[in-house]
Amino acid sequence: MNNMHDDLQAIYEEMVGWRRYLHQNPELSYQEYDTAAFVAKHLESWGIEVRTSVGGNGVVGLLRGGEPGPTVALRADMDALPIQDEKSCSYTSTKKGIMHACGHDAHTSTLLGIAKVASVRRAELKGNLVFLFQHAEEISPGGADSMIKAGCLDEVDAVFGVHLWTPFPVGHVYTRPGAFMAAPDEFTIRIQGKGGHGGLPHQTIDSVYVASQLVVNLQSIVSRQVDPVDPCVVSVGSFHGGTSFNVIAETSVLNGTVRTFNPALRDDVRERMERIVKGTCEIAQATYEFEYKLGYPTVINDLKEAERFARVSTAMFGAEHVHESPLIMAGEDFAYYLQERPGCFIFVGAGNVESGIIYPHHHPRFDIDERSMLQAANLLLAMALDYMA
Amino acid sequence: MNNMHDDLQAIYEEMVGWRRYLHQNPELSYQEYDTAAFVAKHLESWGIEVRTSVGGNGVVGLLRGGEPGPTVALRADMDALPIQDEKSCSYTSTKKGIMHACGHDAHTSTLLGIAKVASVRRAELKGNLVFLFQHAEEISPGGADSMIKAGCLDEVDAVFGVHLWTPFPVGHVYTRPGAFMAAPDEFTIRIQGKGGHGGLPHQTIDSVYVASQLVVNLQSIVSRQVDPVDPCVVSVGSFHGGTSFNVIAETSVLNGTVRTFNPALRDDVRERMERIVKGTCEIAQATYEFEYKLGYPTVINDLKEAERFARVSTAMFGAEHVHESPLIMAGEDFAYYLQERPGCFIFVGAGNVESGIIYPHHHPRFDIDERSMLQAANLLLAMALDYMA
Amino acid sequence: MNNMHDDLQAIYEEMVGWRRYLHQNPELSYQEYDTAAFVAKHLESWGIEVRTSVGGNGVVGLLRGGEPGPTVALRADMDALPIQDEKSCSYTSTKKGIMHACGHDAHTSTLLGIAKVASVRRAELKGNLVFLFQHAEEISPGGADSMIKAGCLDEVDAVFGVHLWTPFPVGHVYTRPGAFMAAPDEFTIRIQGKGGHGGLPHQTIDSVYVASQLVVNLQSIVSRQVDPVDPCVVSVGSFHGGTSFNVIAETSVLNGTVRTFNPALRDDVRERMERIVKGTCEIAQATYEFEYKLGYPTVINDLKEAERFARVSTAMFGAEHVHESPLIMAGEDFAYYLQERPGCFIFVGAGNVESGIIYPHHHPRFDIDERSMLQAANLLLAMALDYMA
Amino acid sequence: MNNMHDDLQAIYEEMVGWRRYLHQNPELSYQEYDTAAFVAKHLESWGIEVRTSVGGNGVVGLLRGGEPGPTVALRADMDALPIQDEKSCSYTSTKKGIMHACGHDAHTSTLLGIAKVASVRRAELKGNLVFLFQHAEEISPGGADSMIKAGCLDEVDAVFGVHLWTPFPVGHVYTRPGAFMAAPDEFTIRIQGKGGHGGLPHQTIDSVYVASQLVVNLQSIVSRQVDPVDPCVVSVGSFHGGTSFNVIAETSVLNGTVRTFNPALRDDVRERMERIVKGTCEIAQATYEFEYKLGYPTVINDLKEAERFARVSTAMFGAEHVHESPLIMAGEDFAYYLQERPGCFIFVGAGNVESGIIYPHHHPRFDIDERSMLQAANLLLAMALDYMA
Repeated sequence: MNNMHDDLQAIYEEMVGWRRYLHQNPELSYQEYDTAAFVAKHLESWGIEVRTSVGGNGVVGLLRGGEPGPTVALRADMDALPIQDEKSCSYTSTKKGIMHACGHDAHTSTLLGIAKVASVRRAELKGNLVFLFQHAEEISPGGADSMIKAGCLDEVDAVFGVHLWTPFPVGHVYTRPGAFMAAPDEFTIRIQGKGGHGGLPHQTIDSVYVASQLVVNLQSIVSRQVDPVDPCVVSVGSFHGGTSFNVIAETSVLNGTVRTFNPALRDDVRERMERIVKGTCEIAQATYEFEYKLGYPTVINDLKEAERFARVSTAMFGAEHVHESPLIMAGEDFAYYLQERPGCFIFVGAGNVESGIIYPHHHPRFDIDERSMLQAANLLLAMALDYMA
Repeated sequence: MNNMHDDLQAIYEEMVGWRRYLHQNPELSYQEYDTAAFVAKHLESWGIEVRTSVGGNGVVGLLRGGEPGPTVALRADMDALPIQDEKSCSYTSTKKGIMHACGHDAHTSTLLGIAKVASVRRAELKGNLVFLFQHAEEISPGGADSMIKAGCLDEVDAVFGVHLWTPFPVGHVYTRPGAFMAAPDEFTIRIQGKGGHGGLPHQTIDSVYVASQLVVNLQSIVSRQVDPVDPCVVSVGSFHGGTSFNVIAETSVLNGTVRTFNPALRDDVRERMERIVKGTCEIAQATYEFEYKLGYPTVINDLKEAERFARVSTAMFGAEHVHESPLIMAGEDFAYYLQERPGCFIFVGAGNVESGIIYPHHHPRFDIDERSMLQAANLLLAMALDYMA
Repeated sequence: MNNMHDDLQAIYEEMVGWRRYLHQNPELSYQEYDTAAFVAKHLESWGIEVRTSVGGNGVVGLLRGGEPGPTVALRADMDALPIQDEKSCSYTSTKKGIMHACGHDAHTSTLLGIAKVASVRRAELKGNLVFLFQHAEEISPGGADSMIKAGCLDEVDAVFGVHLWTPFPVGHVYTRPGAFMAAPDEFTIRIQGKGGHGGLPHQTIDSVYVASQLVVNLQSIVSRQVDPVDPCVVSVGSFHGGTSFNVIAETSVLNGTVRTFNPALRDDVRERMERIVKGTCEIAQATYEFEYKLGYPTVINDLKEAERFARVSTAMFGAEHVHESPLIMAGEDFAYYLQERPGCFIFVGAGNVESGIIYPHHHPRFDIDERSMLQAANLLLAMALDYMA
Repeated sequence: MNNMHDDLQAIYEEMVGWRRYLHQNPELSYQEYDTAAFVAKHLESWGIEVRTSVGGNGVVGLLRGGEPGPTVALRADMDALPIQDEKSCSYTSTKKGIMHACGHDAHTSTLLGIAKVASVRRAELKGNLVFLFQHAEEISPGGADSMIKAGCLDEVDAVFGVHLWTPFPVGHVYTRPGAFMAAPDEFTIRIQGKGGHGGLPHQTIDSVYVASQLVVNLQSIVSRQVDPVDPCVVSVGSFHGGTSFNVIAETSVLNGTVRTFNPALRDDVRERMERIVKGTCEIAQATYEFEYKLGYPTVINDLKEAERFARVSTAMFGAEHVHESPLIMAGEDFAYYLQERPGCFIFVGAGNVESGIIYPHHHPRFDIDERSMLQAANLLLAMALDYMA
């Protein structure tokens, strides 16, 4: 099967071209109309069966192999971010305030490359490949869940995906068995006190004070109440209360995120939060509204497929380039696919300090070492072929 | 001298008319052009010597008495507030978003009434009356200080003023010797942390957490660090930090007020605040900017003039209508006059539950029982005459 | 009536002698057997009607005057403290660990002096004098309440008492109308968590953490929840939890005091405390026991009797030696007498920097300027005679 | 080599006998005189070279194999705990207040069993066995460090040890590569405030309040300042301040533990603690003493030896009985051996719910399923033989 990897090498420049085109023409989550059309047009031109508008702007390609065998899905996401591109290069975004600052353009191009190469050699395939071009990864509820509900995994036996990752150096690949990426939930807490004169606190219920106590109290979940070896974060990202220096604020609103890896812990933290909100308000006779919005589930890699990754990637890149990743506090809606099918999500290093590719994801100067696309394509294809073998 | 009080009674309806006219035509602090002109025109029509544009929009009238004696100043303030009038009555504000919601219209009319009556009987006066129509009481730095610098107290021996006060019932009068109304200072604290991913707190300095700790720590000044019999309030009126649930906020800003009566305590609290801000930031390696803006001084009534009030008002209203006021947490720039001259600031009850006059100062439905103007006029005039006697 | 004051001067050395004897022979609260006998013996020797064992070790003397008139009670307390005397002088305590470190020896001697002088001149008295020698002022529930229940005030019209006070200079006298000394309550809070391994906090409920949060939260009563002009203190005096560095403490116990002047506030604070204890425990799923023990009531001087003090003491000592006292955070069971009868409690300065009499009450080197006894005797006697006049 | 395992089976009852004898005759840390003599006597009786008093009460046996090869050390600890035995069985402790409540008796017996069996078959050994009978594991600084300094590892190539562990079921074995058991440090913080009257907090510096704030602030290390995937615990085990309800405490003392796995984090936490102590004290103008005592290092298993464990134990017990352990928050001075030599520390399940063997280590009713000794002996011996092979 080395031929297909040679073929990928051969179309690398074409993949780069696709990626830069998409980079110049980013589309926000749930608005990936042109990107989906671009993908569908290419897939169709290679004779791949295409379904569009799958659960939204999702595009699903099906390539039936020449020989019977399992069906393996590979996934790329397509949406961009509401960030102004501040890079200096030839392929900066042409859309004001919209940018592929997370590498989804390269994910899409990587998967297109695999599709093109595999379509040529479909006779050799001992099974089928499904190409999942997913919309809306960046914003909850995300495209994965709706695509699954629209049947994108119906015939699928296993699913793989990658994220190009600039904090890791190009040439290296990472994942870990079991829990890998966090479940990123969102909460909003509205503390209702009683406003009044800044000099007469006893006639008021000071929502700023109550909410401040709450910010401190919430941290006791992580430090005192959960298993220290089961990672958990509770962060209050924003605190807004009051409008005047000499008026005690009637209402203060906290907005934040909870990150966990263990689903049981996730439920537990939610309960503990509400208990703390309730108690903290009772102390001051304030009232509250507590809204907790589940984000994506934890990305949990199948143990066997994680072993497959270790074996396949070690053979391909050498053991010194294959790493067990630490737990990643970010979330990914790839988690939904892994709830349905065995599979593995993989990080492919895309950073390059020497070349100045040092900016983190979601940064206005984010870019990738484009060679990571070729490595990702080789790895994903090899995982699929190994599964079929 | 009963005659003058009869005269006041006789022009009560005229005073009400002035008040309602001003109520319908409110002007914001530092913009009291028409009000000042209205005042000046009336004073001049009564043959009173008038200085305009005193330290801003201030108007000063001088009425020389027929016989030699001391000079007593009486003060009214003229500015309105940026509040939308929501009352239902015939004399609501005609200016959108501007309202006499603190009774300064009535203060002005009260003092006009005294001026008119006294001007007629100037021959009887054993001294001079100065009428201080002050601009800009509501907003620091206030008009009092600038009017003093412009010489409004130069020939003055004593100064008196009233505030009509709806939390107290009409027919009753209040003050207290010594410290009476608080020094209302303002502070702004900017906590500079280091922003970052909500799931990676260790790569950040969480300004929301630091500022929350600070809100709690600041309260230890009042509860642990100052003399429990020396009243003090530290209130954080607003807290603003962060813009997203999943991003730790780089900066949070607190804005609030300190209220004290004891000047030494005031300095002490300021120092303690900065010590607490500094320590709280050091704990988390955050940095800060701390801005402390002195408001008006404490209103401190002269002991002898407070006794004069007790004697004069008891004779006028009966002991059951004369009260030692509790300390008042609000501030007043009348404090500046009292730093320069002996005098007394007095609260005249203006509330009336039966008539539905129950709204506090600065409330959109604020109104007064207008009879309080007559009482205030009688009292201020009697204080002045007593001083001259 | 100057004669009686001359008489007091004449027996000053005798009063000093009694005081030094008692100082050398102190007895703890509820154990004032010899002191009571000493008092009773003297009173009887002067022909005064004596009741002993009144409500405990209390001694009550009744001196009927030669002419009809009201009955005035004067009170002294007799108990000493469990403190080791560390003074250097000829009359140090002969009892190890027991000391008159609060001046009650001098109070007793002062009242004995009055009794002796008055007994000689009883024919001149236009009414009766009751001498209340009270046991157990230092320890709640105190002797005053039990003596009242035993009838010590039954025939009494008014009651006066003094405290010699070293923080104030000898020669000066102080009180204030209305609330004067605080109600000193005691609370005990037992936080019941769940003990366990110091490395496994999630298997425990950390009582030290909960109680620490509680110590902070309790301070919000003073700083946020009560009227800033109504003095209040909540102090946690002791915190004890845990026995080992690596075991999380199952139980922590807080013990402290609440000080208020306003009885309504006192009840309010108690409720707020329990609400805060409850909420703080609920946050962490801990449980609690909350015990609140009422101390003495607030010492509230009758307004008219406070005026009598001002008049009588000004005549006696000159206005420059008579002061309105600030509110005093300490408590006194004299409060119980004032709940039953009009009266006034007075501080008589007993400090003297030049003579090294600078130690506060309850200090191992406490002493008084003994001349304060003569002033106290003169003042108390004059108050009684003025009341009778 | 199956023969040796058969031999172990054959002496199982003898091992049980040794264990019960030791259980009845426990000795506290640093006082293991009789236990050491018991061990030495047996080792000598089997012809093993014995060194006694190694770094304290340590005993080291050396068994030279019949053929050349590496030297492998196996370690057991010998000390008991100051706990009163509350079990009901035939072999309860005969010493009041001393108990083998952690299973060291069984560790010692397990290693004796191996020594006996191996001594018989020494001719078959392709290398040497060193038997480390260590004193004083329970109390820092522990016996391991002193035994190493006394040369116990001088000729050793690898070192293995087990802990019988009742929270895990008998029949199952556990370890993990790399960091396995925490570094358990101890800290003491003395907050020096300024004592005073409970009603006059402003004249004091309230050490109870400062220390309470500190207990809360210290938790921000875990919740806000360290990597959420790098486990860390900061627990304050005891808090003692104050002696009276109405006296503000001059001094409060906190005592607690820090648990980490990552040595860099350990240093970091210590620095952060001192920064928090310093800032919290500065806020209130208190001072402090901060003492931080390093406990045992993290137990870090050699990656290769952990793989050996996985292979050897899977072959011996079956994969379903071999587990990757979670991180363990307890500490072990076996860590010192692993700082010097490659090796692995292993947990052997010793709990048995059906038999009522459910009490955690250090519990007064602690006991083990004694069959765990046989499994431990087999495993340790197999590890050594595998290493030699």
